[in-house]
Amino acid sequence: MSEAKRLAGEKAIEYVEEGMIVGVGTGSTVGYFIDALGRIRDRIAGAVSSSEQSSERLRSHGIEVVDLNAIGPLPLYVDGADECDPQKRLIKGGGAALTREKIIAEASTRFVCIIDPAKRVRVLGRFPLPVEVIPMARSLVARAILAATGGQPVWREGVVTDNGNWILDIHGLSITDPMVVERELNQIPGVVAVGLFARRPADVVIVGGEPPQIL
Amino acid sequence: MSEAKRLAGEKAIEYVEEGMIVGVGTGSTVGYFIDALGRIRDRIAGAVSSSEQSSERLRSHGIEVVDLNAIGPLPLYVDGADECDPQKRLIKGGGAALTREKIIAEASTRFVCIIDPAKRVRVLGRFPLPVEVIPMARSLVARAILAATGGQPVWREGVVTDNGNWILDIHGLSITDPMVVERELNQIPGVVAVGLFARRPADVVIVGGEPPQIL
Repeated sequence: MSEAKRLAGEKAIEYVEEGMIVGVGTGSTVGYFIDALGRIRDRIAGAVSSSEQSSERLRSHGIEVVDLNAIGPLPLYVDGADECDPQKRLIKGGGAALTREKIIAEASTRFVCIIDPAKRVRVLGRFPLPVEVIPMARSLVARAILAATGGQPVWREGVVTDNGNWILDIHGLSITDPMVVERELNQIPGVVAVGLFARRPADVVIVGGEPPQIL
Repeated sequence: MSEAKRLAGEKAIEYVEEGMIVGVGTGSTVGYFIDALGRIRDRIAGAVSSSEQSSERLRSHGIEVVDLNAIGPLPLYVDGADECDPQKRLIKGGGAALTREKIIAEASTRFVCIIDPAKRVRVLGRFPLPVEVIPMARSLVARAILAATGGQPVWREGVVTDNGNWILDIHGLSITDPMVVERELNQIPGVVAVGLFARRPADVVIVGGEPPQIL
């Protein structure tokens, strides 16, 4: 599986163009992309990072990490996913970086998602759906999630996001209409971000393999 | 005006029942309510607070401040507003406490809003609409707000919310359909909360005066 991740991560380099500032996600597959980016670091202008973890790895390769507020829209965002459906809609947030990932995806013209074959599903929801919440609203949001979706919210105890918030993972969903679920969960006060990328899906999906498959 | 605020704040005490845990908002009008609550502190079980500022004032009166996660739904929430329309829909967040205020309003069965007469409007939007944002998304959200509403987002520089986030104030709006504006702004990645209380408006509005008016 790590071989498939490496192949996907390295393939994504083909989408990087001379002088770009590149949006960079978080996770094990992205780690391979960052390492490949390090090998062409003189050809890019810098990176916007979705997590402290990725920022460190970028800097270790000598790549400058830039503040998103200092620049306009990004040309390219490369990130992994926990699940991907045939319409390139995603579940993300297994690594608890979903809010910043969503921000960078929204700011980017092209979102290239890199996955191994095990992440492909017909219907999203086998992987528990992460939701970032303001700590004081944990119980309130859990009750509202149960009422709105029928899924079982489980508190990811001990995890604090880079924004100082907590994560609820919703188990037992079969998300046939991701746009509706994303929109409805976004209305619950205390929800900071929903790990469902339906309103803004991936543009290109690279499935790691020999050769990699482009969706 | 401070006399009208005092009259509204003191009138709200009539909604407090024996043994209640009371949800308490933030601001100058709420300050009068907290002081009145202090005078009956032996008759209530405690308070849930929407800000550090209100927590301090509650504790100074010997009222215990309780964690919302430790209890279920609240029977009563008392808070002010920056604007109130005839349908009891509100703009809140002038004091930058909108996210926690929205959480407590959502958790409460009855929301009693206390205002002075100057806060009443036909159409919301003369008061700039506050939006709490994740700092890294400030520019992105500002661009999205402009595109979605036509309003002018202005960064409230130097202000950091109790959640560690920033505030954008949207100027130049005339909010004829607050439900739609609230829902659409909630979809923008990086938006933590929108200071529009339309999906969950006030149940009762007390307008300070001699005598106070109940809407």
